[in-house]
Amino acid sequence: MLSNVQDVPAAASRLRPRQDAALAERLARSAAAREGAHGSTEDFRRWFAERAAAHRYRVDRIPFAELDRWSFEATTGNLVHSSGRFFTLEGLHATVDHGPFREWHQPIIKQPEVGILGILVKEFDGVLHFLMQAKMEPGNPNLVQLSPTVQATRSNYMKVHQGSDVRYLEYFTATGRGRVVADVLQSEHGSWFYRKANRNMIVEAADDVPPHEDFHWLTLGQIGALLHDDNLVNMDSRTVLSCAPTPGADEDALDSDIDLLSWITAERSRHDVRTELVPLATLPGWVNRPFSIDHEEGLYFSVVAVSVHAANREVTSWTQPLIEPRGHGVAAFLTRRLGGVPHVLVQARVEGGFLDTIELGPTVQCVPSNYTDQPGARPPFLDLVETADPARIRYEAVHSEEGGRFLNAESRYLVIETDDGQTPLTPPPGFRWVSHGQLTSLVRHSHYVNVQARTLLACLNAMSAAA
Amino acid sequence: MLSNVQDVPAAASRLRPRQDAALAERLARSAAAREGAHGSTEDFRRWFAERAAAHRYRVDRIPFAELDRWSFEATTGNLVHSSGRFFTLEGLHATVDHGPFREWHQPIIKQPEVGILGILVKEFDGVLHFLMQAKMEPGNPNLVQLSPTVQATRSNYMKVHQGSDVRYLEYFTATGRGRVVADVLQSEHGSWFYRKANRNMIVEAADDVPPHEDFHWLTLGQIGALLHDDNLVNMDSRTVLSCAPTPGADEDALDSDIDLLSWITAERSRHDVRTELVPLATLPGWVNRPFSIDHEEGLYFSVVAVSVHAANREVTSWTQPLIEPRGHGVAAFLTRRLGGVPHVLVQARVEGGFLDTIELGPTVQCVPSNYTDQPGARPPFLDLVETADPARIRYEAVHSEEGGRFLNAESRYLVIETDDGQTPLTPPPGFRWVSHGQLTSLVRHSHYVNVQARTLLACLNAMSAAA
Repeated sequence: MLSNVQDVPAAASRLRPRQDAALAERLARSAAAREGAHGSTEDFRRWFAERAAAHRYRVDRIPFAELDRWSFEATTGNLVHSSGRFFTLEGLHATVDHGPFREWHQPIIKQPEVGILGILVKEFDGVLHFLMQAKMEPGNPNLVQLSPTVQATRSNYMKVHQGSDVRYLEYFTATGRGRVVADVLQSEHGSWFYRKANRNMIVEAADDVPPHEDFHWLTLGQIGALLHDDNLVNMDSRTVLSCAPTPGADEDALDSDIDLLSWITAERSRHDVRTELVPLATLPGWVNRPFSIDHEEGLYFSVVAVSVHAANREVTSWTQPLIEPRGHGVAAFLTRRLGGVPHVLVQARVEGGFLDTIELGPTVQCVPSNYTDQPGARPPFLDLVETADPARIRYEAVHSEEGGRFLNAESRYLVIETDDGQTPLTPPPGFRWVSHGQLTSLVRHSHYVNVQARTLLACLNAMSAAA
Repeated sequence: MLSNVQDVPAAASRLRPRQDAALAERLARSAAAREGAHGSTEDFRRWFAERAAAHRYRVDRIPFAELDRWSFEATTGNLVHSSGRFFTLEGLHATVDHGPFREWHQPIIKQPEVGILGILVKEFDGVLHFLMQAKMEPGNPNLVQLSPTVQATRSNYMKVHQGSDVRYLEYFTATGRGRVVADVLQSEHGSWFYRKANRNMIVEAADDVPPHEDFHWLTLGQIGALLHDDNLVNMDSRTVLSCAPTPGADEDALDSDIDLLSWITAERSRHDVRTELVPLATLPGWVNRPFSIDHEEGLYFSVVAVSVHAANREVTSWTQPLIEPRGHGVAAFLTRRLGGVPHVLVQARVEGGFLDTIELGPTVQCVPSNYTDQPGARPPFLDLVETADPARIRYEAVHSEEGGRFLNAESRYLVIETDDGQTPLTPPPGFRWVSHGQLTSLVRHSHYVNVQARTLLACLNAMSAAA
């Protein structure tokens, strides 16, 4: 085809390799660097403690009636902001055709706008460093955590609240300010968000980056070490980090890529999931109270309201609703090394808020206390995780979920090595062994890897680099 | 990581390469085979003419009132089947923030169940052959076209209409009957379907396949030749064929893969598309008549009803609604060979029925007669397609869209080679140069390549193999 019209020789010089092998190697070099050009990890800890103490923050629970510019809409009872932007709390009605729970109602956050979660990177002394921010979010149990360079909702950068600019945002919205390392829309918590996606970006700065006191450059190796701290590296950082290309995609795996994709397609087709937004006012099984909207059995989560006073955010004080989970979560990957290649056992998960039926989640992802009265509904492999031999636990830390929307939403993240007596090579329906390299390939695209699995993938990447 | 627990040596023998290079080579051999083990292409044409004449079919337009088991729902005016299955015709209200049309209402088909479009393949004399079916669909202008081995809605294979089994379906629903060559959920027409996806599958049969008089084995090379016929290879065949892995993914392209994915992510984030299903009864701008629901200006399409009498379908007669477009469509890829690598100019298209905001479509995809009174809204590059030098037209044929849902929905598909004066390397916003190899990589995943672009990709693959 296309043979008798002239080629464009001038364009030949503009062609580029589709894959940039050097980039993965550069990221690997950063992952191997345990000290940074801008100080040791201990230096960072001192800086972080200083930043966390530099501002006084205060978060108070308030009744919904004291929310400023937020109110329950007369017709629907939905909790909305007077600007019509940010997000709303609405009701979700879901029916599914598999599993122990076939139909349910719940409050859910609707936030249709795509936000940006971006990390700026730059080489110092030949090693890529990541610009991380000490940032307060009202829902974090310790308030200040380590966030990406930029966390911006569209409302943020459209300046709906008339606050100051989001620092460094221009690297992620304007072309020519840097080179894209990763850029993919990823889902957030499908149990709490209705079809929410954020743009996960890593951009390498072309020029000098002006410093700021709330930001610190770290190597991937330093961040990997900090990922072992409880409640330090925030969710937005973890999901962006999971999207970094890693070197040495395994050539072999238990399944070929096409068989893996076929299994995912079959899981999507197998589940008939119907969801619809319904008014929050009349949600069966949920009780509206002055300070909270609760499940009638005290399970799952509550909707609450807080007031926030802070000195160094875009605006100095505000009120907002948050979702407060009941009980602590568990998110665990069971792993095996098969023929020398690390594999993780993923679960095809239906969550009411997913755009496309299922995504791959951790082997176990749940709040165990929700099953106290229904032991028969306990998820597969939860017992194994709760009784794991400590010698088999390869990774363990408590992380909290997005502190801008969730209050004290802590989960224990674990990576546990298993053997054939615990996790058979032919797992139960809905589970599949996926190699670390395959998971890294999938996370380049939307709708494959859920946010909890992405946290664990970021940890796997860090562990792999440290080994 | 994972270092001090024993490896699983027994599993090592079960590991497989993630990519099967031999498969792409085998498909290339089939694409190069212009004659098949089951006869020449002329033999096929005689067989096909005989099959088309073997049964008498009759399709008549009827008023909606004569539909059997289909009726307008009292509260919504939606057109529904009494079983609650198959599909419904509802209303769509869409608002977008870019382009000449910012808000519109239209009827749309809602069919939430995932169907299977499957082609069975098998080696004869060392060459892969594809099992194709002579199949009547009431909306086809010539009624009988060449379809995949299996076209089955979930209602089909759940036997809602109590008809006969779908032949060869077991190869696509049971494991162990064959080896998966391709398996991906792909969108259908976003202008006419609300979030419809079908499972596009190619499966290689492990054992002998029983013959049937309505089915014929063809090489990819034979199908490629037949793709030059008007109204012969049906839409379902074309989309499945586009998902076949092709050899020799180009190593170089105008953009790296990450820059291409980043552009797609940016296009998804740039567009704010809001859609909601609304009652069909009260759709602004649409007029309900006894035989049709029409746009008040006679544009776009109508909803109509037909009765069908046939001898060799699953059931022998039925009635159903169809969507009948006004005017013939045009779907064209403008191409350039850049540095020896074939590229096509894709458009990031917003269609109201897409699940995820945008998909990549042909350079031009429209019904030109819709713009007669609005020349200012004519799509970019349409003039170039309509006035193309015949010597630059590399491919041209009229194909019809899914005849089970659309009546006489014909479009002219074109591949036109261009030069720098016509299609600059830096195209207008919303357009991008993508290499043939990149398009093939994207079509392995959902939500990237729309159904019209997939038809053109199937043609590009055939042209590439023939060259």
